Amino acid sequence: MKYLHTMIRVRDLDAALRFFCDGLGLREVRRRDVPQGRFTLVFLAADETPDAEIELTHNWPNQYASVSEDYGSARNFGHLAFRVDDIYATCAHLQSMGVVINRPPRDGHMAFVRSPDLISIELLQRGDALPSAEPWASMSNTGVW
Amino acid sequence: MKYLHTMIRVRDLDAALRFFCDGLGLREVRRRDVPQGRFTLVFLAADETPDAEIELTHNWPNQYASVSEDYGSARNFGHLAFRVDDIYATCAHLQSMGVVINRPPRDGHMAFVRSPDLISIELLQRGDALPSAEPWASMSNTGVW
Repeated sequence: MKYLHTMIRVRDLDAALRFFCDGLGLREVRRRDVPQGRFTLVFLAADETPDAEIELTHNWPNQYASVSEDYGSARNFGHLAFRVDDIYATCAHLQSMGVVINRPPRDGHMAFVRSPDLISIELLQRGDALPSAEPWASMSNTGVW
Repeated sequence: MKYLHTMIRVRDLDAALRFFCDGLGLREVRRRDVPQGRFTLVFLAADETPDAEIELTHNWPNQYASVSEDYGSARNFGHLAFRVDDIYATCAHLQSMGVVINRPPRDGHMAFVRSPDLISIELLQRGDALPSAEPWASMSNTGVW
């Protein structure tokens, strides 16, 4: 038995790809447009774990509605977790893109952010925690994750 | 960068382990009870992908409440997907445990079920689709997934 992927639905595919690829550093592995079903699937992966994919499902906006479906969020799904080489650098980069660092890496070890579709992402520092550093050490939590 | 896990919250840990381990065939990799935080973490994995974990978070029932929190479900999280060796055998086994096969493997290729906490699980047959077989070929969908 093999784990294949975690699928999440994204309302705005460009915004999702900005967050997951430009922001977090996942790469697009493959993509499939299905015009007859009016959806696009994009598979992403982290460089070290190419087989553990994140599937983004983008249902094209309904041609009869003025707004896309709001997918909401709930607590039965918790988060996706990734190990990163430099949690401060990742958080600084995300913040420079306008992403709120909901749980800053005060401890040099763990941070939480959320995708545009409110998918919580846990970032964990590879190896030992980094030495305490500002602005992270004194940054408060923002919102929920 | 490395994918570590997908975390889901489970209201009834025994029921979740019955579903994910006895039912689907994941195995428990490790477990951590945190009495001071009143929660238990259980990490599961499929045999072929030991590094891609599913983290179950079980918040212990509040000693002042008579019912556990209902975590709800939403559509921003889609599903977890696993490849299985014999999709008919997996579905028959789950069904024998009382699990509803929401989307039966009519095509010998794909099925959907849901965990006790309404996490959708996609099952995909390894390799080519299996030859058409009853009772699956003529089984209707049940509910949503």
